Amino acid sequence: MTSTALLESLRQIVGAPHVLTDGDLSAYEQDWRKRVHGKSLAVVRPGNTAEVAGVIKACAAAGVQIVPQGGNTGLSVGSTPDDSGRQIVLSLTRLNAVRHIDKDNLTFTVEAGCILQNLQELADQQGLLFPLSLAAEGSCTIGGNLGTNAGGTQVVRYGNTRDLCLGLEVVTPQGEIWDGLKGLRKDNTGYDLRDLFIGSEGTLGIITAATMKLFPQPAAQLTAFAAVPSMEAAVRLLGLAHQHLGAGLTGFEVMGQFALSLVVKHMPQLRVPFTEKEADMGDEAPYCVLLENSDSESEQHARLRFEHLLELAFEDGCVVNAVVAESLTQAHDLWHIRESIPLAQAEEGLNIKHDISVAASRIPAFVEHADAVLKREIPGVRLVNFGHLGDGNLHYNVQVPEGEDGKAFLRDKEALVNHLVYEAVDAFGGSFSAEHGVGALKTDKLEKYQSPVALQMMRAIKNALDPQGIMNPGVVLARG
Amino acid sequence: MTSTALLESLRQIVGAPHVLTDGDLSAYEQDWRKRVHGKSLAVVRPGNTAEVAGVIKACAAAGVQIVPQGGNTGLSVGSTPDDSGRQIVLSLTRLNAVRHIDKDNLTFTVEAGCILQNLQELADQQGLLFPLSLAAEGSCTIGGNLGTNAGGTQVVRYGNTRDLCLGLEVVTPQGEIWDGLKGLRKDNTGYDLRDLFIGSEGTLGIITAATMKLFPQPAAQLTAFAAVPSMEAAVRLLGLAHQHLGAGLTGFEVMGQFALSLVVKHMPQLRVPFTEKEADMGDEAPYCVLLENSDSESEQHARLRFEHLLELAFEDGCVVNAVVAESLTQAHDLWHIRESIPLAQAEEGLNIKHDISVAASRIPAFVEHADAVLKREIPGVRLVNFGHLGDGNLHYNVQVPEGEDGKAFLRDKEALVNHLVYEAVDAFGGSFSAEHGVGALKTDKLEKYQSPVALQMMRAIKNALDPQGIMNPGVVLARG
Repeated sequence: MTSTALLESLRQIVGAPHVLTDGDLSAYEQDWRKRVHGKSLAVVRPGNTAEVAGVIKACAAAGVQIVPQGGNTGLSVGSTPDDSGRQIVLSLTRLNAVRHIDKDNLTFTVEAGCILQNLQELADQQGLLFPLSLAAEGSCTIGGNLGTNAGGTQVVRYGNTRDLCLGLEVVTPQGEIWDGLKGLRKDNTGYDLRDLFIGSEGTLGIITAATMKLFPQPAAQLTAFAAVPSMEAAVRLLGLAHQHLGAGLTGFEVMGQFALSLVVKHMPQLRVPFTEKEADMGDEAPYCVLLENSDSESEQHARLRFEHLLELAFEDGCVVNAVVAESLTQAHDLWHIRESIPLAQAEEGLNIKHDISVAASRIPAFVEHADAVLKREIPGVRLVNFGHLGDGNLHYNVQVPEGEDGKAFLRDKEALVNHLVYEAVDAFGGSFSAEHGVGALKTDKLEKYQSPVALQMMRAIKNALDPQGIMNPGVVLARG
Repeated sequence: MTSTALLESLRQIVGAPHVLTDGDLSAYEQDWRKRVHGKSLAVVRPGNTAEVAGVIKACAAAGVQIVPQGGNTGLSVGSTPDDSGRQIVLSLTRLNAVRHIDKDNLTFTVEAGCILQNLQELADQQGLLFPLSLAAEGSCTIGGNLGTNAGGTQVVRYGNTRDLCLGLEVVTPQGEIWDGLKGLRKDNTGYDLRDLFIGSEGTLGIITAATMKLFPQPAAQLTAFAAVPSMEAAVRLLGLAHQHLGAGLTGFEVMGQFALSLVVKHMPQLRVPFTEKEADMGDEAPYCVLLENSDSESEQHARLRFEHLLELAFEDGCVVNAVVAESLTQAHDLWHIRESIPLAQAEEGLNIKHDISVAASRIPAFVEHADAVLKREIPGVRLVNFGHLGDGNLHYNVQVPEGEDGKAFLRDKEALVNHLVYEAVDAFGGSFSAEHGVGALKTDKLEKYQSPVALQMMRAIKNALDPQGIMNPGVVLARG
């Protein structure tokens, strides 16, 4: 089939206005961080699952490769076409219906293109909670969250996207529709296809809808900000918080003082506790921790529990100073500090990002080791260390040394920085990609650090489900 | 390779005393409910992962099929050899080391042959909780729990076995060892092989070890027993309990009055509330619910929360009577009622068991429909309905009509009963196997009720990972 014939066929399936070939398609053809610019044959925007199936059948018949795309906010270049002009970008954003809300089952069934924040708000209107929450929530889609098994800030309590999903609807690389949307909490009838598709980054098929878990809204949510004397102390505080807040612990973020100092410098309107005002606190407390306590009872009860925890933490010595937000505004402001770190980093200049995980118990030794290696090998290096300590997930980022030219530093040192960080992660039994996935950006890291036996099984599964190799080639697994 | 040569080779790998060919091997060769009696070439009991790999390599070279086995307590005939005398039973019970306890990471890494109850006790000794709990816990193994994705009584809070696992060690059908035991809470580096092996019932490879989640022990645990006026009311109570106990809700079991009457009849030493004493309660309250509330604070607090919930439930009308256990002994006694139902059923005579799930919201309509169909089609049928309502999972069992010959009834009606129940389940979008798996017992049900598209993908995965077809053939997927 010629390209022209395929495009004509796609126009018949989804309607001519939804096959984009002209004009500025950069929103679809380049990745979120603008590292990779591709060129597609067309951007195709089906409006329902049957149309997705039709598009895939047509592409499979033509031997044309497909790059599925949601909000295109991924950080690992998993939804960008190559520059051949021969791949189809399959945008799922028009599949944005909420098919069913089942309050008694605590689930809703939503289409892949639904924006995460819209789903949070919808749950809220129903008096329920959809707990998935992450920086891109205003523009990312639930399909993308599922495709990458996104994490975020509430994983310590509610798990990753995988843990929030009870069922999927998927279009296979052959254009067949699998309806796995029963919404059951227990169903042991064969292999777990659901979890195989979740996190497969569109390489095994296309998620078109999902049944997701909802939760009762907490009666109250409180936020605390604590200065801790060491990373060991932060891990001890995590243990105390698990013990005394139980499942009430819904957030546990750590931030190094250098990361906080960038917020102070570039967002002077934000009041950051335990840094500027108490100028020497940085030495006494190299890290701060943000804790969130969700309570099914009342704000008063949440406050008592928090005070009890912090008393124990002071006695233990794992906290040297702490503040509990007195109002929702204060709580919002504290979270805003944490969420502003990436922007403050960007304001400061170029930097190298990592998204790594290590068992929480090994985080202190890992950080000590990695800090020492980087400082030794790269004089003047500045470490922006923050992240979801409750999940053992750090955004262990590296800022260009003060006064150095950013582009030159990245050109000369980015590969070395990555090598040093990932070798350290590997030595401590960690992962080079905790929540951002592999994409096309890290397939070499997968080859290097994933178990060869696991890789062999992954390739066998890819070949079994997508023997033509048309689904998002070069993502997760390197091109053969 | 001849059988003799293979046996000699196996003796060299695991030691002659661990290759069993003589004597009474029925503990290995028949299933738990003694429905199927097989005959193996040998029962092989390797002592470590390397020996498991050696055994599989030898069997693969000889083209001999392998039936992996843990405690052999499964209910779906998933670990029984056929009667050919040519299959190897690979018993994992000698792999019973606890490799590592990581209190700060809230995990332990344990070998497949560890008995579940031993792991619960070990966690307890560490001041932690391993929440997986089910009837066979005194003899089932964690490897079997993982292979079947076992459920149990705490799923409403902690999930199925799948949800408790952070990593696996697996020996592939080629005898390669995959070490996936990092114990990370976030790791998005390729396809989710862990969840593919969990629930695959030994048909894709052999789980030899796992890193499992641990939790803080609750400060207090309280149990309540409530009489409810209908199944709708039970579901309303579930919603209230989610809302007001939050993650404190760790158990929510429903029991029909006929199920309870069998306990009263056959276990007269047990005091069952809301049945015998108040003789008319059965009409007013056709079901009772057992609730468990785990509190991270104190017993006093747990009691206040429970009382608050029950007040609301009385006001709502979804509870007509309730008792909260005053002591651990009382709580134990209430649970003992629930746990005695299967034994009381056996005392009453032969019966037909089901392990089905439906979305909680649809349970009332499902039960009304299925009850009506069964009563219409099979005069005198007695329905023993109980189970994990918090997960939408009912053991919707059928007792032989009073006075009828059990064996004759099963011979004449078992297929019809199963047909009627599974058709009803299917009509309500449910699952014919919620927590017991498929085994060799229900492969025909899988063919009938699983999506053909899903089945095709499952077969492709099986062929990709086990092209020789030597791993537990005829389990999950019917023999080709």
